[in-house]
Amino acid sequence: MNDMGKKLQFEDIKLIEATKDDLELIMGWRSNPLIYKYFYHQNAPLKWDEHITFWESRKNRIDWIINLRYNSHWRKIGSINISKLTDEKPEIGLFIGELTSWGSGYGKKAVKLALKYLKNTNYTGATASVSKENIGSQKLFEQLNFKRTSSIKLDKEWLYTIEFKK
Amino acid sequence: MNDMGKKLQFEDIKLIEATKDDLELIMGWRSNPLIYKYFYHQNAPLKWDEHITFWESRKNRIDWIINLRYNSHWRKIGSINISKLTDEKPEIGLFIGELTSWGSGYGKKAVKLALKYLKNTNYTGATASVSKENIGSQKLFEQLNFKRTSSIKLDKEWLYTIEFKK
Repeated sequence: MNDMGKKLQFEDIKLIEATKDDLELIMGWRSNPLIYKYFYHQNAPLKWDEHITFWESRKNRIDWIINLRYNSHWRKIGSINISKLTDEKPEIGLFIGELTSWGSGYGKKAVKLALKYLKNTNYTGATASVSKENIGSQKLFEQLNFKRTSSIKLDKEWLYTIEFKK
Repeated sequence: MNDMGKKLQFEDIKLIEATKDDLELIMGWRSNPLIYKYFYHQNAPLKWDEHITFWESRKNRIDWIINLRYNSHWRKIGSINISKLTDEKPEIGLFIGELTSWGSGYGKKAVKLALKYLKNTNYTGATASVSKENIGSQKLFEQLNFKRTSSIKLDKEWLYTIEFKK
């Protein structure tokens, strides 16, 4: 990842690009029904073959692990990605895998860092596709000034969009 | 871990002692309701503080990560431990965190390796405490010649015991 010398980091949250060594952890998080109930394309725990195929066939996409600092120790609590990097407004997706950390504002900080990355790279904005049942995620994007622009995916998700100021 | 030069390994399954770097993965697996529904002491996703406190206060116990070889690549699929190491017959506990690998016999191979460890270390047998709702785990221990010896923990679990041949 080229982040042009600008670290994707706050005091307690930082993004580190995901590697193959993170695949079991990502799969573990994504195989939790309390998490995948908000995913459009998934309704059961993942199979390794699907997971590795998805990983190796990714294109125009960056995946980071969200790291939290707590008691001077960093740990991995979730995942954030930017996909459709050939669009003017790429799409941000995320989840906090550590369920008991939900509602602490960590996801919001991670999205701020992803937005910083996109601004630094001269994109004009970003989108996010959020389950209509995921009220927490809707609030997160609204607090960051994303606007709800349409109903998508058989009316199961909202499309959120933000335009960066020039 | 001193395994006296004897590797805890089959062709496709091996045990590697767990480290702090595995804590997020273990917590992710243990925070899945499809997994913790079989745990006596847990009915919700874990909190980090509880998890790290448990980890750091372990005594008389070894924890391994169960690794599976697939397409010449090893990956982490679950966790097995032996506790009560000051007893003559220590207790084996395990789970396969990768849900879509259940029923493949990997847990059974992991228990065989844990038994090998105990035999090598001159224990006289082993026990296991299994939820009465966890039929798969009951079969696993029965296939390995454990005997159901009593009903424990408010009649929610079976105690299984094996005596090693002299």
